[in-house]
Amino acid sequence: MSQLTILKIGGNIIDVPYLLEKFISDFVKIEGPKILIHGGGKLASELSAKMGIETKMHEGRRITDYETLKLVTMVYAGLINKEIVAGFQKDGCNAIGLSGADANIIPATRRAPQPIDFGYVGDVNPQMINDRFLFSLLSMGITPVICAITHDGNGSLLNTNADTIASSIAIAMSKHYSTKLVYCFEKNGVLLDPDDDDSVISLITYDHFQNLKKEGIISKGMIPKLDNAFKAISNGVSEVEIKHASNLNLQIGTLLK
Amino acid sequence: MSQLTILKIGGNIIDVPYLLEKFISDFVKIEGPKILIHGGGKLASELSAKMGIETKMHEGRRITDYETLKLVTMVYAGLINKEIVAGFQKDGCNAIGLSGADANIIPATRRAPQPIDFGYVGDVNPQMINDRFLFSLLSMGITPVICAITHDGNGSLLNTNADTIASSIAIAMSKHYSTKLVYCFEKNGVLLDPDDDDSVISLITYDHFQNLKKEGIISKGMIPKLDNAFKAISNGVSEVEIKHASNLNLQIGTLLK
Repeated sequence: MSQLTILKIGGNIIDVPYLLEKFISDFVKIEGPKILIHGGGKLASELSAKMGIETKMHEGRRITDYETLKLVTMVYAGLINKEIVAGFQKDGCNAIGLSGADANIIPATRRAPQPIDFGYVGDVNPQMINDRFLFSLLSMGITPVICAITHDGNGSLLNTNADTIASSIAIAMSKHYSTKLVYCFEKNGVLLDPDDDDSVISLITYDHFQNLKKEGIISKGMIPKLDNAFKAISNGVSEVEIKHASNLNLQIGTLLK
Repeated sequence: MSQLTILKIGGNIIDVPYLLEKFISDFVKIEGPKILIHGGGKLASELSAKMGIETKMHEGRRITDYETLKLVTMVYAGLINKEIVAGFQKDGCNAIGLSGADANIIPATRRAPQPIDFGYVGDVNPQMINDRFLFSLLSMGITPVICAITHDGNGSLLNTNADTIASSIAIAMSKHYSTKLVYCFEKNGVLLDPDDDDSVISLITYDHFQNLKKEGIISKGMIPKLDNAFKAISNGVSEVEIKHASNLNLQIGTLLK
């Protein structure tokens, strides 16, 4: 099977125009078929403030009321998605920007309102992904750029976690490709010492991960990310890499296998 | 050749949720392959005011500065486009929302800044349309929903006239289909008496159009629309219909042949 790279970027890249521009030119250099998943960034919060929409949070997680849904749809599926696509086209990469509603690529389920009603938030699972359509696009040499908006099939768009979209797509695409999932974030990788960006652990196996958790070396914030990554691996994804977006084409990062 | 319907709607439908919902359910009933082109509506102007962006006009035409470009990209390619797509999915029509940058379907040329600099505004011609990709989507049973944002291939998105996008796509798709272009607007069709919505002229040929212009029966605002329509017909489009969106599945409207 040929290799497919599925890469997720977050706000730390999206918010800084020159970082995004460098990222785009690095991403284009990745050989073979590839898919980009992107979340939001500060822009949604900034606009929200400008437009007088109150940002509601519960334990650090945003509650997506209808006004917020409209805003994130504008920012994620509109501005950010299309600016990235135009940037790829400039660099000779024929990209197509998609939300989960487009060609029904990511049908989702609106999260139950109990115990906390997070509003228009969707949960997705790998069985729901329209992998055949994504495969058709990749076969035409087109690079999908997917934002973190899905839909419920009943006419509602849903705000959805970009990490989960990335792992769900990676699992679904493992039918067609040997799939590598790359999470770009603000550190060089999983660190032995959170204050030392040079202490990257270059390889973590599942057993190793269990030990690192027991020893308290992996911090709270990283645990769900790694759980998600190992879940992808146990569901068919070949490998997961966690790295800084600036190191896209460098061998600096943590490989999970 | 099988028939393709290409339909353009404007703000009068987009701005009114129950009209848009009815339109979507009517559109889904059109048999055979189809493409929807949509413009903006009042939402962009409303948001523009909320966000303190000054709307600059020249002789009734909007000047698209960079802030306005970002806004229309959010509204057209983000909110409106994805809400329409989610509505189609609800009604069982597998739609895909696209800007002209996506899969490079509408490469455009930024308008020269002389005599008036309209800013980030693109002009498009039928030869530039990526008709092969649209044909692939239609062959997969997917309905493209295209917003009036294009790109210049150098990384810039461009605000573009939706009527021209619709006629350019119709001309380009005439290679693959017998193409019908439908312009929906706020009247029942071309009227003999502009104050009488029942005075629809049901059929206008090119010669008839020249006479109606001479006699002053066709008003100023309709002339560019009809010029555009007859240009499409002389470039391969089978027929053009001008009608009210509420009459989508009724035989009320003006047919140009």
